Amino acid sequence: MNIGLVGLGKMGFNLAENLMDHKHTVTAFDVNQEAGEKFTAVGGTYKASLEDMVDALETPRIVWLMVPAGDITVQTIETLKGLLSEGDILIDGGNSHYKEAIAFADDLKQQGIHFMDVGTSGGTSGARNGACMMIGGNAEAFATIEPFIADICVEGGYLYTGEAGSGHFLKMIHNGIEYGMMAAIAEGFEVLEKSNYDYDYEKVAHVFNNGSVIRSWLMELTENAFSKDPKLETIKGVMHSSGEGKWTVETALELGTAVPVTALSLMMRYRSQEDDTFTGKVVAALRNEFGGHAVERK
Amino acid sequence: MNIGLVGLGKMGFNLAENLMDHKHTVTAFDVNQEAGEKFTAVGGTYKASLEDMVDALETPRIVWLMVPAGDITVQTIETLKGLLSEGDILIDGGNSHYKEAIAFADDLKQQGIHFMDVGTSGGTSGARNGACMMIGGNAEAFATIEPFIADICVEGGYLYTGEAGSGHFLKMIHNGIEYGMMAAIAEGFEVLEKSNYDYDYEKVAHVFNNGSVIRSWLMELTENAFSKDPKLETIKGVMHSSGEGKWTVETALELGTAVPVTALSLMMRYRSQEDDTFTGKVVAALRNEFGGHAVERK
Repeated sequence: MNIGLVGLGKMGFNLAENLMDHKHTVTAFDVNQEAGEKFTAVGGTYKASLEDMVDALETPRIVWLMVPAGDITVQTIETLKGLLSEGDILIDGGNSHYKEAIAFADDLKQQGIHFMDVGTSGGTSGARNGACMMIGGNAEAFATIEPFIADICVEGGYLYTGEAGSGHFLKMIHNGIEYGMMAAIAEGFEVLEKSNYDYDYEKVAHVFNNGSVIRSWLMELTENAFSKDPKLETIKGVMHSSGEGKWTVETALELGTAVPVTALSLMMRYRSQEDDTFTGKVVAALRNEFGGHAVERK
Repeated sequence: MNIGLVGLGKMGFNLAENLMDHKHTVTAFDVNQEAGEKFTAVGGTYKASLEDMVDALETPRIVWLMVPAGDITVQTIETLKGLLSEGDILIDGGNSHYKEAIAFADDLKQQGIHFMDVGTSGGTSGARNGACMMIGGNAEAFATIEPFIADICVEGGYLYTGEAGSGHFLKMIHNGIEYGMMAAIAEGFEVLEKSNYDYDYEKVAHVFNNGSVIRSWLMELTENAFSKDPKLETIKGVMHSSGEGKWTVETALELGTAVPVTALSLMMRYRSQEDDTFTGKVVAALRNEFGGHAVERK
């Protein structure tokens, strides 16, 4: 099939190569011309504007967005609205909020454009060699894109989840689970590191990956990380995040349901981003006030 | 090799069959004669007393304990102390606390008996078909048992971790990680279940298991569970525990280190065991006291 791709970042580039491996034609746009040149070098077609990219596609067009969620996605969809026609399919492969996906779908439906929210997991290696996708949107439009979705995913690695928004919602939950799993693994190694035992963490992760209950891709990545840096001495323990964990907790709050492990895994990321906290100052000051306990001065 | 096995429960029986698959001879004792008869039926040798079992072994003897941690393990080791001799090896394959393992090792060392703490993971299917083992204790004794350990574990599925206690310590941490990972998975499905979307959870777990970042054996077990009972309607959400999560948190407290995700995954298990809580009553009463908010009466 012929697919238009917007965004030749790590994920987009790898997905494009994956599509081309399966004999699909990819016409891509990226604001970064250098990425375009790299893409041309591997056999892709690069267009220097969204207009040119859209013009190069056969109708009904299929356009895959693989750009950062938020403003860039919103602006790109706004521009594409003026370029696409009835029956075209616009796929958002980024991590947009599911409520945004619903709004995009409603808006585009007025022009007869099908919006599909496709949550993509598996990291950059998955994008290249076989991804995992959770897909919401119009069922007929899904039937149109399913053949190439099946090509670029691992076997069993895609699920049509129903109405628009349901794909990104499920991907959000996937990432929420990921936060908690990562925190659980990390806290275990924290206790090992603080203990009096001198474990080889690469070997520990290796044995955990072979026959144990906690064997997992995340533990394999843990093993990889320790193989490169046995005590992670080159890395600072600052944990950033890009939204999906927060959205999972916000969604749980909206639904009035308890997700303490997910919430704490998110908040410990925030804590890790601060060298000192006002919480710490307040508690230290209070202990000093009522009990004369020493405070550490700057 | 010839191995004496104490305990023909689910784990012990499966390990024994696994050993016998690999041409090892197993002489077993269990207080339950029925288990002994079943064991004889699959080709094992059953003895009706610890004495008879020990007598039937060649020296240096290797005795594997696969009985519940705590009193039964303590009593069995106490009895075996009187039956074993210098150079014999006593393996504790249960989930004893690592401090108990250290105490057992110190005590048995006085008689020249080698105590090995072998944390075993992989569940009953792992015990039968290939387990994962974390092994602490005397290095020479480990060299003696390594050949059959290698036989009954999956490839890469065992690790000698050093001095006595280090095997059970690592298994404790493994289980602590397991608590957090399970809670993370469960909270994700909780939000899905509370949401307005109608996902097929078996299919969700299936797509999560194929190419996603959170693919794992626990997610495969999640998929199995939903395949049998799509909404888990036959199960009550009561989460029991058998100690290792608590010990992980206690160890973190002793080390003065933060493991909030592990701690909350443990405490939410405790919460699940109560239909109502005194915490709930106190907060409801206080909201009523200061703001006249309604309380729910019994």
